[in-house]
Amino acid sequence: MRKVILFIAISLDGFIADQNGKVDWLNGQSDHEETLDSCSAFMETVDTVIMGWNTYHQIITELSPDQWIYQNMTSYVITHRELPSTDTIRFTQSDPCNVVRTQKRKTGKGIWICGGGTIIQPLIRNGLIDEYYISVIPTILGAGIRLFEENNTEIKLKLSRTQSYNGITELVYTPR
Amino acid sequence: MRKVILFIAISLDGFIADQNGKVDWLNGQSDHEETLDSCSAFMETVDTVIMGWNTYHQIITELSPDQWIYQNMTSYVITHRELPSTDTIRFTQSDPCNVVRTQKRKTGKGIWICGGGTIIQPLIRNGLIDEYYISVIPTILGAGIRLFEENNTEIKLKLSRTQSYNGITELVYTPR
Repeated sequence: MRKVILFIAISLDGFIADQNGKVDWLNGQSDHEETLDSCSAFMETVDTVIMGWNTYHQIITELSPDQWIYQNMTSYVITHRELPSTDTIRFTQSDPCNVVRTQKRKTGKGIWICGGGTIIQPLIRNGLIDEYYISVIPTILGAGIRLFEENNTEIKLKLSRTQSYNGITELVYTPR
Repeated sequence: MRKVILFIAISLDGFIADQNGKVDWLNGQSDHEETLDSCSAFMETVDTVIMGWNTYHQIITELSPDQWIYQNMTSYVITHRELPSTDTIRFTQSDPCNVVRTQKRKTGKGIWICGGGTIIQPLIRNGLIDEYYISVIPTILGAGIRLFEENNTEIKLKLSRTQSYNGITELVYTPR
Protein backbone atom coordinates (compact mmCIF):
# COMPACT_ATOMS: atom_id res chain seq x y z
CA MET A 1 0.00 0.00 0.00
CA ARG A 2 1.26 3.52 -0.77
CA LYS A 3 2.47 5.46 2.24
CA VAL A 4 0.79 8.75 3.19
CA ILE A 5 3.44 11.12 4.55
CA LEU A 6 2.92 14.40 6.33
CA PHE A 7 6.15 16.22 5.47
CA ILE A 8 6.11 19.69 6.96
CA ALA A 9 8.13 22.24 8.93
CA ILE A 10 6.95 23.81 12.18
CA SER A 11 8.28 26.44 14.55
CA LEU A 12 9.21 25.22 18.04
CA ASP A 13 5.84 26.55 19.20
CA GLY A 14 4.00 24.51 16.56
CA PHE A 15 3.14 26.94 13.77
CA ILE A 16 3.37 26.09 10.06
CA ALA A 17 2.98 29.71 8.93
CA ASP A 18 2.86 33.11 10.56
CA GLN A 19 -0.36 35.07 11.03
CA ASN A 20 -0.27 36.30 7.43
CA GLY A 21 0.40 32.83 6.08
CA LYS A 22 4.04 33.70 5.37
CA VAL A 23 6.77 31.09 5.62
CA ASP A 24 9.86 33.29 5.32
CA TRP A 25 10.96 32.35 8.87
CA LEU A 26 11.43 28.74 7.70
CA ASN A 27 15.19 28.89 7.55
CA GLY A 28 17.79 27.43 9.89
CA GLN A 29 19.93 29.32 12.33
CA SER A 30 22.58 30.43 9.84
CA ASP A 31 22.54 31.48 6.19
CA HIS A 32 26.07 30.25 5.77
CA GLU A 33 25.91 26.76 7.16
CA GLU A 34 25.62 23.97 4.65
CA THR A 35 22.15 22.50 4.58
CA LEU A 36 21.23 18.87 4.26
CA ASP A 37 18.96 18.50 1.30
CA SER A 38 16.59 16.02 2.85
CA CYS A 39 13.75 17.71 1.00
CA SER A 40 15.06 16.58 -2.40
CA ALA A 41 15.67 13.09 -1.04
CA PHE A 42 12.10 13.00 0.24
CA MET A 43 10.70 14.21 -3.08
CA GLU A 44 12.20 11.14 -4.76
CA THR A 45 9.99 8.91 -2.60
CA VAL A 46 6.64 10.47 -3.60
CA ASP A 47 4.75 10.96 -6.85
CA THR A 48 1.57 12.55 -5.51
CA VAL A 49 1.06 15.68 -3.43
CA ILE A 50 -2.17 16.74 -1.74
CA MET A 51 -2.74 20.34 -0.65
CA GLY A 52 -5.46 22.84 0.11
CA TRP A 53 -6.30 25.98 -1.83
CA ASN A 54 -4.31 28.34 0.42
CA THR A 55 -1.14 26.30 0.03
CA TYR A 56 -1.66 26.10 -3.75
CA HIS A 57 -2.34 29.81 -3.97
CA GLN A 58 0.78 30.62 -1.95
CA ILE A 59 2.92 28.49 -4.25
CA ILE A 60 1.68 30.09 -7.49
CA THR A 61 1.62 33.69 -6.24
CA GLU A 62 4.53 33.84 -3.84
CA LEU A 63 6.90 30.89 -3.69
CA SER A 64 7.18 30.16 -7.40
CA PRO A 65 5.00 32.42 -9.60
CA ASP A 66 6.78 31.58 -12.86
CA GLN A 67 6.80 27.82 -12.84
CA TRP A 68 4.79 25.05 -11.21
CA ILE A 69 7.27 23.53 -8.79
CA TYR A 70 5.90 19.99 -8.61
CA GLN A 71 6.14 19.08 -12.30
CA ASN A 72 7.35 15.58 -11.53
CA MET A 73 4.31 14.54 -9.54
CA THR A 74 0.54 14.73 -9.64
CA SER A 75 -0.86 17.48 -7.42
CA TYR A 76 -4.35 17.29 -5.93
CA VAL A 77 -5.68 20.67 -4.82
CA ILE A 78 -8.69 20.44 -2.53
CA THR A 79 -10.98 23.43 -2.98
CA HIS A 80 -14.65 24.27 -3.30
CA ARG A 81 -13.74 26.27 -6.44
CA GLU A 82 -14.59 24.74 -9.80
CA LEU A 83 -11.37 25.00 -11.75
CA PRO A 84 -10.16 23.15 -14.87
CA SER A 85 -7.68 20.40 -14.00
CA THR A 86 -4.54 19.74 -16.00
CA ASP A 87 -2.47 16.58 -16.29
CA THR A 88 -0.35 17.53 -13.31
CA ILE A 89 -2.74 19.67 -11.25
CA ARG A 90 -6.12 18.18 -10.37
CA PHE A 91 -8.65 20.32 -8.55
CA THR A 92 -11.13 18.41 -6.45
CA GLN A 93 -14.05 19.22 -4.18
CA SER A 94 -13.82 15.89 -2.33
CA ASP A 95 -12.94 15.94 1.34
CA PRO A 96 -9.30 15.25 2.24
CA CYS A 97 -9.97 11.76 3.66
CA ASN A 98 -11.71 10.63 0.47
CA VAL A 99 -8.96 12.01 -1.71
CA VAL A 100 -6.32 10.17 0.33
CA ARG A 101 -8.27 6.90 0.45
CA THR A 102 -8.77 6.98 -3.33
CA GLN A 103 -5.08 7.67 -3.95
CA LYS A 104 -3.97 4.92 -1.56
CA ARG A 105 -5.84 2.33 -3.62
CA LYS A 106 -3.81 3.21 -6.71
CA THR A 107 -0.30 1.92 -7.30
CA GLY A 108 2.64 4.30 -7.12
CA LYS A 109 5.11 5.99 -4.83
CA GLY A 110 4.31 7.79 -1.59
CA ILE A 111 1.59 10.40 -1.14
CA TRP A 112 2.79 13.68 0.33
CA ILE A 113 0.44 15.70 2.50
CA CYS A 114 1.74 19.21 2.02
CA GLY A 115 -0.78 21.38 3.91
CA GLY A 116 -2.38 23.38 5.21
CA GLY A 117 -4.12 22.83 8.51
CA THR A 118 -7.65 22.22 7.22
CA ILE A 119 -6.35 19.38 5.03
CA ILE A 120 -4.07 17.90 7.66
CA GLN A 121 -6.41 17.88 10.70
CA PRO A 122 -9.01 15.38 9.40
CA LEU A 123 -6.26 13.10 8.08
CA ILE A 124 -4.57 12.97 11.49
CA ARG A 125 -7.87 12.48 13.30
CA ASN A 126 -8.89 9.63 11.01
CA GLY A 127 -5.55 7.82 11.26
CA LEU A 128 -4.70 8.34 7.60
CA ILE A 129 -1.12 9.54 8.13
CA ASP A 130 1.38 6.66 7.83
CA GLU A 131 4.47 8.77 8.54
CA TYR A 132 4.96 12.10 10.29
CA TYR A 133 8.07 13.84 8.97
CA ILE A 134 8.31 17.05 10.97
CA SER A 135 11.16 19.54 10.72
CA VAL A 136 11.40 21.72 13.84
CA ILE A 137 12.67 25.22 12.96
CA PRO A 138 14.74 26.89 15.75
CA THR A 139 12.28 29.76 16.18
CA ILE A 140 9.49 30.53 18.62
CA LEU A 141 7.14 32.27 16.21
CA GLY A 142 4.70 33.65 18.80
CA ALA A 143 1.58 33.40 16.64
CA GLY A 144 0.33 31.94 13.37
CA ILE A 145 -1.37 28.92 11.87
CA ARG A 146 -1.00 25.77 13.97
CA LEU A 147 -0.06 22.35 12.60
CA PHE A 148 -1.99 20.57 15.33
CA GLU A 149 -5.32 22.03 16.36
CA GLU A 150 -7.03 20.96 19.57
CA ASN A 151 -9.32 18.04 18.83
CA ASN A 152 -9.29 15.73 21.86
CA THR A 153 -7.85 12.83 19.89
CA GLU A 154 -4.74 11.33 21.50
CA ILE A 155 -2.43 9.58 19.03
CA LYS A 156 0.58 7.64 20.23
CA LEU A 157 3.57 7.67 17.90
CA LYS A 158 6.84 5.78 17.52
CA LEU A 159 10.01 7.70 16.73
CA SER A 160 11.72 6.24 13.65
CA ARG A 161 14.70 8.58 13.42
CA THR A 162 15.93 12.14 13.89
CA GLN A 163 18.56 14.25 12.23
CA SER A 164 19.68 17.84 12.61
CA TYR A 165 21.29 20.36 10.26
CA ASN A 166 21.68 24.10 10.58
CA GLY A 167 19.61 24.13 13.77
CA ILE A 168 16.64 22.35 12.19
CA THR A 169 15.72 18.97 13.72
CA GLU A 170 13.83 16.44 11.65
CA LEU A 171 11.61 14.14 13.70
CA VAL A 172 10.17 11.13 11.88
CA TYR A 173 7.34 9.16 13.50
CA THR A 174 4.95 6.38 12.60
CA PRO A 175 1.71 5.64 14.48
CA ARG A 176 2.28 3.22 17.36
CA MET B 1 26.00 34.63 35.92
CA ARG B 2 23.74 31.70 36.82
CA LYS B 3 21.93 30.09 33.91
CA VAL B 4 18.12 30.03 33.81
CA ILE B 5 16.98 26.79 32.22
CA LEU B 6 13.52 25.86 31.04
CA PHE B 7 13.62 22.07 31.39
CA ILE B 8 10.28 20.60 30.41
CA ALA B 9 8.57 17.87 28.39
CA ILE B 10 5.95 18.55 25.73
CA SER B 11 3.77 16.43 23.50
CA LEU B 12 4.45 16.69 19.76
CA ASP B 13 1.51 19.09 19.58
CA GLY B 14 3.02 21.33 22.26
CA PHE B 15 1.16 20.50 25.48
CA ILE B 16 2.84 20.23 28.90
CA ALA B 17 -0.20 18.64 30.56
CA ASP B 18 -3.55 17.31 29.47
CA GLN B 19 -6.81 19.15 30.02
CA ASN B 20 -7.00 17.99 33.63
CA GLY B 21 -3.41 18.93 34.32
CA LYS B 22 -2.35 15.26 34.29
CA VAL B 23 1.10 14.24 33.08
CA ASP B 24 0.67 10.46 32.96
CA TRP B 25 1.19 10.48 29.16
CA LEU B 26 4.78 11.67 29.70
CA ASN B 27 6.40 8.34 29.01
CA GLY B 28 8.31 7.15 25.97
CA GLN B 29 7.11 4.69 23.40
CA SER B 30 7.95 1.55 25.35
CA ASP B 31 7.84 0.57 29.01
CA HIS B 32 10.62 -1.92 28.45
CA GLU B 33 13.24 0.14 26.67
CA GLU B 34 16.07 1.43 28.79
CA THR B 35 15.76 5.13 29.44
CA LEU B 36 18.53 7.66 29.49
CA ASP B 37 18.46 9.38 32.83
CA SER B 38 19.15 12.87 31.52
CA CYS B 39 16.80 14.19 34.19
CA SER B 40 19.16 13.16 37.01
CA ALA B 41 22.15 14.55 35.09
CA PHE B 42 20.30 17.83 34.65
CA MET B 43 19.37 17.98 38.35
CA GLU B 44 23.06 17.97 39.20
CA THR B 45 23.49 21.27 37.33
CA VAL B 46 20.83 23.24 39.27
CA ASP B 47 20.30 24.19 42.90
CA THR B 48 17.17 26.31 42.55
CA VAL B 49 13.78 25.48 41.06
CA ILE B 50 11.00 27.98 40.32
CA MET B 51 7.41 26.84 39.87
CA GLY B 52 3.83 28.06 40.09
CA TRP B 53 1.19 26.97 42.56
CA ASN B 54 -0.45 24.42 40.26
CA THR B 55 2.85 22.64 39.64
CA TYR B 56 3.64 22.66 43.38
CA HIS B 57 0.18 21.40 44.23
CA GLN B 58 0.44 18.59 41.70
CA ILE B 59 3.77 17.48 43.15
CA ILE B 60 2.56 17.33 46.76
CA THR B 61 -0.84 15.77 46.06
CA GLU B 62 -0.20 13.53 43.10
CA LEU B 63 3.40 12.96 42.02
CA SER B 64 4.98 12.57 45.44
CA PRO B 65 2.54 13.04 48.34
CA ASP B 66 4.81 11.50 50.98
CA GLN B 67 8.07 13.31 50.47
CA TRP B 68 9.15 16.62 48.96
CA ILE B 69 11.05 15.57 45.86
CA TYR B 70 13.43 18.51 45.53
CA GLN B 71 15.16 18.25 48.91
CA ASN B 72 18.56 19.03 47.43
CA MET B 73 17.64 22.43 46.07
CA THR B 74 15.75 25.57 47.06
CA SER B 75 12.25 25.72 45.61
CA TYR B 76 10.48 29.01 44.94
CA VAL B 77 6.72 28.64 44.61
CA ILE B 78 5.02 31.66 43.06
CA THR B 79 1.50 32.10 44.41
CA HIS B 80 -0.83 34.80 45.67
CA ARG B 81 -1.44 32.62 48.73
CA GLU B 82 0.26 33.63 51.98
CA LEU B 83 1.95 30.47 53.16
CA PRO B 84 4.80 29.92 55.63
CA SER B 85 8.10 29.26 53.88
CA THR B 86 10.55 26.60 55.00
CA ASP B 87 14.29 26.34 54.40
CA THR B 88 13.77 24.46 51.18
CA ILE B 89 10.36 25.72 50.00
CA ARG B 90 9.92 29.50 49.73
CA PHE B 91 6.49 30.86 48.83
CA THR B 92 6.55 34.24 47.11
CA GLN B 93 4.00 36.64 45.70
CA SER B 94 6.54 38.33 43.42
CA ASP B 95 6.07 38.06 39.69
CA PRO B 96 8.13 35.38 37.90
CA CYS B 97 10.50 37.88 36.22
CA ASN B 98 11.41 39.50 39.54
CA VAL B 99 11.97 36.15 41.20
CA VAL B 100 14.29 35.06 38.38
CA ARG B 101 16.19 38.37 38.29
CA THR B 102 16.74 38.23 42.05
CA GLN B 103 17.97 34.64 41.89
CA LYS B 104 20.30 35.39 38.97
CA ARG B 105 22.14 37.97 41.05
CA LYS B 106 22.99 35.37 43.69
CA THR B 107 25.86 32.92 43.28
CA GLY B 108 25.11 29.26 42.77
CA LYS B 109 24.29 26.61 40.21
CA GLY B 110 21.65 26.84 37.50
CA ILE B 111 18.04 27.95 38.04
CA TRP B 112 15.44 25.51 36.79
CA ILE B 113 12.14 26.84 35.48
CA CYS B 114 9.80 23.92 36.11
CA GLY B 115 6.34 25.25 35.16
CA GLY B 116 3.59 25.87 34.54
CA GLY B 117 2.55 28.05 31.67
CA THR B 118 1.77 31.21 33.65
CA ILE B 119 5.29 31.19 35.09
CA ILE B 120 7.01 30.32 31.81
CA GLN B 121 5.27 32.77 29.42
CA PRO B 122 6.53 36.04 30.93
CA LEU B 123 10.05 34.63 31.27
CA ILE B 124 10.15 33.69 27.58
CA ARG B 125 8.67 37.04 26.52
CA ASN B 126 11.17 38.99 28.59
CA GLY B 127 14.19 37.05 27.35
CA LEU B 128 14.96 35.55 30.76
CA ILE B 129 15.44 31.96 29.59
CA ASP B 130 19.13 31.18 28.91
CA GLU B 131 18.57 27.60 27.81
CA TYR B 132 15.52 25.77 26.47
CA TYR B 133 15.75 22.07 27.25
CA ILE B 134 12.66 20.55 25.70
CA SER B 135 11.87 16.84 25.61
CA VAL B 136 9.41 15.97 22.85
CA ILE B 137 7.19 13.04 23.87
CA PRO B 138 6.06 10.81 20.95
CA THR B 139 2.39 11.57 21.47
CA ILE B 140 -0.12 13.91 19.84
CA LEU B 141 -2.14 14.75 22.93
CA GLY B 142 -5.02 16.53 21.17
CA ALA B 143 -5.76 19.04 23.93
CA GLY B 144 -4.34 20.42 27.16
CA ILE B 145 -2.16 23.15 28.60
CA ARG B 146 0.23 24.66 26.06
CA LEU B 147 3.90 25.36 26.72
CA PHE B 148 3.93 28.27 24.28
CA GLU B 149 0.93 30.53 24.25
CA GLU B 150 0.34 32.96 21.40
CA ASN B 151 1.98 36.27 22.24
CA ASN B 152 3.28 37.78 18.99
CA THR B 153 6.88 37.72 20.20
CA GLU B 154 9.22 35.99 17.73
CA ILE B 155 12.34 34.52 19.37
CA LYS B 156 15.12 33.06 17.25
CA LEU B 157 17.00 30.16 18.83
CA LYS B 158 20.20 28.24 18.22
CA LEU B 159 20.17 24.46 18.51
CA SER B 160 22.90 23.29 20.90
CA ARG B 161 22.30 19.55 20.75
CA THR B 162 19.70 16.81 20.48
CA GLN B 163 19.46 13.28 21.78
CA SER B 164 16.81 10.60 21.63
CA TYR B 165 15.90 7.67 23.85
CA ASN B 166 12.80 5.53 23.99
CA GLY B 167 11.11 7.70 21.37
CA ILE B 168 11.65 10.92 23.33
CA THR B 169 13.77 13.58 21.61
CA GLU B 170 15.55 16.19 23.70
CA LEU B 171 16.04 19.51 21.92
CA VAL B 172 18.39 21.99 23.60
CA TYR B 173 18.43 25.60 22.42
CA THR B 174 19.93 28.91 23.47
CA PRO B 175 18.64 32.31 22.30
CA ARG B 176 20.36 33.42 19.04
